[in-house]
Amino acid sequence: MTELLLPPDAQDLLFREARTANAFTQEPVTREQVAAIYDLVKYGPTAMNGQPMRILLVGRDSRERLLKHMADGNRDKTAEAPMVAVLAVDTDFHEQLPRTFPHAPHLRDGLAAAGVEKREATARFNAGLQAGYFLIGVRAAGLAAGPMTGFDAAGVDEEFFSGSSWRSFLVVNLGRPAENAWFDRLPRLEVDEVVAEV
Amino acid sequence: MTELLLPPDAQDLLFREARTANAFTQEPVTREQVAAIYDLVKYGPTAMNGQPMRILLVGRDSRERLLKHMADGNRDKTAEAPMVAVLAVDTDFHEQLPRTFPHAPHLRDGLAAAGVEKREATARFNAGLQAGYFLIGVRAAGLAAGPMTGFDAAGVDEEFFSGSSWRSFLVVNLGRPAENAWFDRLPRLEVDEVVAEV
Repeated sequence: MTELLLPPDAQDLLFREARTANAFTQEPVTREQVAAIYDLVKYGPTAMNGQPMRILLVGRDSRERLLKHMADGNRDKTAEAPMVAVLAVDTDFHEQLPRTFPHAPHLRDGLAAAGVEKREATARFNAGLQAGYFLIGVRAAGLAAGPMTGFDAAGVDEEFFSGSSWRSFLVVNLGRPAENAWFDRLPRLEVDEVVAEV
Repeated sequence: MTELLLPPDAQDLLFREARTANAFTQEPVTREQVAAIYDLVKYGPTAMNGQPMRILLVGRDSRERLLKHMADGNRDKTAEAPMVAVLAVDTDFHEQLPRTFPHAPHLRDGLAAAGVEKREATARFNAGLQAGYFLIGVRAAGLAAGPMTGFDAAGVDEEFFSGSSWRSFLVVNLGRPAENAWFDRLPRLEVDEVVAEV
C-alpha cells in the first residue's frame, strides 16, 4: 500500500481510530475550543470561497430548547453532551462575496437575483463539505463528535433561527468520549466497490 | 488561542498551508495512491454508515470525454491535471446497508420504497461530507486537489454513468502543484461571524 505523507499518529487521530461517540464525560467543551477548531477548518475549500456554514453552540442552559426537536434515539445523548453544535447554512452567504471573493463582485448580485432556493441549494452542498472539515477538526482538537441528521430541522429553525437566514442541517454532539462510548466499528466498503477507472 | 492536539505540521499539511491548485506538474498520480487515500478517509462518518460516495478516475486516455462537459474556465486545468477524480453518489447505496449497517437491515427496504429521489437527497448530503474527507485525504497523501462544481453534471452522467445508479456531483483535479499553482489566499470569515451561542 502506498504510504501517505500524513504521519500515522495523525491518521489515527483523525480517521483510523476516531469514532462517532455516543456518550461523553462531563468535561466541559468551551466556545474557545470551538473557535480554535474553526480557525483550522476555515481554510477548507468552498465554491467561490463562499463559506456558507454557520455554527450555533447550544450550551447546557439552552439544551432543552434543542432536545424537543431531536429524534427519540438521539435525545438522551444530546442531553448528556457537554456541548452541542447545530450546523447551519446561511442562505445569505452571498452578501459576503464582495469581501471573500473580491475579484468577482458581480456574483453577489447574480445570487441575489437567483433567489433563496437556488442559494440554499448551493449553500447546502458547500456547507456539507465544510461539515466534513469540521468533524475532522473536532478530532484534531482531541475531542469526539457525534453527528446526527435525526432531528426536526424546521422545528430547530423556528426555535433558534426565526427571522434569520440560517437553516440547520446537522447537529453534532461534542465532548470527550466516555467509557463505552462506541458501538462496534461498522464495515466499510472496499476500494474496488467505490473506485472505478476509465 | 486553545492549542489543538493535531501537531502543527499536520495542521499545515491539511489546512493552513494547503491550497486549491490550479496547475500541476506532470508527475503521475496512480490508482494506488487514490486507493491509499480512500483507505484512510473511508472511516469518516456517514448517516446509517451508508457511504454513498463513489470515485471515477479519469486517466489521460479518457480525458477528452470529460473535458467537453467542463465549464470553460475549468477545461484547461482539467486537461493538464495528471489525474482527475469524478466524485459521484450511488443512488442505490441502500443495497449495501444489510452489510454496512447490519443491526437495522430493514432500512434497505424502507429506502427502496422511498424512491430514488429521496435516496438521492440523502446520498448527496452524506457524499458531501465524504467529499470533505476526501479532499483532506488528498492533502494527507501530499497531493493538491482542485475541486470544481463548474461542469455539466447531466452530460457527465450520460457520458460515464449511463444505465448505472451513479450521479456526479464534484470533479477534482489531483496532482503535485506546479509553480504558480495558487491564486492569492482569499479571506476567511471571522469566528464571530460564523459561531453563535445560546
